[in-house]
Amino acid sequence: MAKRVAENPIITPEMVKPSAPNLEVIGAFNPGATRFGDEIILLLRVAERPIMDDPDLVGVPVLNLNHADSGRLEILTFPRHSPLTDLSDPRAVVYEGRVYLSSISHLRLARSKDGVHFTIDDEPTLFPETKYEEYGIEDCRITPIDGVYYISYTAVSRYGICVGLACTEDFKRFQRLGLILHHENKNVALFPRRVGGRYVAMHRTASSAFNGPNMWVAYSPDLLHWGDHQFLMAPRVHHWDSRRIGAGAPPVETPEGWLIVYHGVNAKDGYCAGVALLDLDEPHRVVCRSHEPLIAPTEDYEVSGFFERVVFPTGLTPLGDGRWMVYYGVADRSVAVAETTMDELLAVAKGELALTR
Amino acid sequence: MAKRVAENPIITPEMVKPSAPNLEVIGAFNPGATRFGDEIILLLRVAERPIMDDPDLVGVPVLNLNHADSGRLEILTFPRHSPLTDLSDPRAVVYEGRVYLSSISHLRLARSKDGVHFTIDDEPTLFPETKYEEYGIEDCRITPIDGVYYISYTAVSRYGICVGLACTEDFKRFQRLGLILHHENKNVALFPRRVGGRYVAMHRTASSAFNGPNMWVAYSPDLLHWGDHQFLMAPRVHHWDSRRIGAGAPPVETPEGWLIVYHGVNAKDGYCAGVALLDLDEPHRVVCRSHEPLIAPTEDYEVSGFFERVVFPTGLTPLGDGRWMVYYGVADRSVAVAETTMDELLAVAKGELALTR
Repeated sequence: MAKRVAENPIITPEMVKPSAPNLEVIGAFNPGATRFGDEIILLLRVAERPIMDDPDLVGVPVLNLNHADSGRLEILTFPRHSPLTDLSDPRAVVYEGRVYLSSISHLRLARSKDGVHFTIDDEPTLFPETKYEEYGIEDCRITPIDGVYYISYTAVSRYGICVGLACTEDFKRFQRLGLILHHENKNVALFPRRVGGRYVAMHRTASSAFNGPNMWVAYSPDLLHWGDHQFLMAPRVHHWDSRRIGAGAPPVETPEGWLIVYHGVNAKDGYCAGVALLDLDEPHRVVCRSHEPLIAPTEDYEVSGFFERVVFPTGLTPLGDGRWMVYYGVADRSVAVAETTMDELLAVAKGELALTR
Repeated sequence: MAKRVAENPIITPEMVKPSAPNLEVIGAFNPGATRFGDEIILLLRVAERPIMDDPDLVGVPVLNLNHADSGRLEILTFPRHSPLTDLSDPRAVVYEGRVYLSSISHLRLARSKDGVHFTIDDEPTLFPETKYEEYGIEDCRITPIDGVYYISYTAVSRYGICVGLACTEDFKRFQRLGLILHHENKNVALFPRRVGGRYVAMHRTASSAFNGPNMWVAYSPDLLHWGDHQFLMAPRVHHWDSRRIGAGAPPVETPEGWLIVYHGVNAKDGYCAGVALLDLDEPHRVVCRSHEPLIAPTEDYEVSGFFERVVFPTGLTPLGDGRWMVYYGVADRSVAVAETTMDELLAVAKGELALTR
């Protein structure tokens, strides 16, 4: 079964330099991952919050959209002890009914030769920049397609939770390609090649009176415009993924189907990583889906942190020697990695292997 | 100002033949509208509910997906007086926490020479057919583009509230083109021509902790795949459209911009029709927006019905003699129409005319 490395958590907030002196890094987690040359590259979600001098104030970092020096943050401040202020969810600051995030996230590059020991850039790689990124950019996935690395990410703002796309060929210069999916959507992972002539993505819609948070597949002629949305899968009652699901790492092609590592949540276990196989030619069809999770939160660093009991897989990357690395965010705080093989992943997807918790 | 015709409501449920003997028509409203040859065509939303013999049962009509004769309905039944059954919202039947619609809608064609007196087809024109239409198809808008009539509609199912697209050249044969926008989205109206080489649509996303129900513009190379989502406008505090907004009729090109008739809601007035102008070259930019509604619910047929106080504009169609007809659903029950001119609409959009309630 997937074997956690002894070095876990391999990246923690303490290892990341803040992007400004008045900020502290409270999360370095949920990394996009890819092989790039002889390295493994991660794009960490780095969450920062303002260091407040006045203990009676709570600060909310947002992108400053009103000044020429855009790309910089401004810190909104609210009275911490006011009845108008609700801090009950650590991820949010609610003031007079309006919801802000308590931290703002950007993407930061980390690189490694062995997939375990990473060197983290001192500066942000992709920083919030547009009005759709006012509250941050989060939880990216990286998919190489025809030599270009596409980065799908969550863009949060007063306009909602949308999906942005950026690309790079060298991880030095990046180009934003706009919002590819409207509010409310997140957890988007692109497939590494066209299927039936079209690009393919998994996405995750929000729940409503009629439906839970479901995973879908969409198709595109050009990666920028998406349609032909097809339902992929829903949470399953009485399973590890009964409450909520979502991609996950970008799919890996195998002879038996597209292998995906996805996340699922139930009340007992928290966020777990699981595995499924999708039809090669019609990737909106599920071939099989793991009865048990691949990784459930059991280690201290998975159970305790900013948000409890979270194993949130975002990358699945080959080392080139038969080993595959599952990168995952833990407890909305740090990064961990587990080693596995494609045979093991397929066996878990098919229910031939039960989880060793 | 927009002048209601004396014949209002011009179409009522009583004028529509049920699609099966065990159903009653409870709504014929929110019509897509277009000129077609020398006629005005409406595609009505026809809502039907089962006629129940047993007063202790409540019936829920859904598309029967499990039989070869798909396209037919099945009637789910629930105990009317059970504590597990919640009928407090007339639009819904909630049983054991699961939400169904109390009626199922299809689209029905009506035709007229004068825009006021309509002949309604005896049979459904577009009936729910796919799994994404299990609970019905609703509230279409019709946009002619290059000789083809595109019909954007709300598809409701256990998978959520999505946007489907169909097309026809003759209003006899129709082709479904799939889901163009994922859950949760509705009130989609296409623009009648490409702008900057791309097709354009308005859409309306759902609210969340961060945002209200906002209108957006999206772009497409082929009408099937959509992206480059751009925020268009939000509800305005202290206005007639403070709670909720959405398209509306498909835009009409004028020298001053794309003129749109849209709906807005506040607590006092209910659903009203208003007007806005969008930039001709960048249609995600608002030029101006009416301070007052064009039509607010004041007439009996607008105030009372299935859902109170609703003026819901869905079509804006020229008669060819300078008059423009605003078609709108009233009280989630019937269809009404008001006559206006382009000069009047522009004046309302620019705030030069105040509403005569």
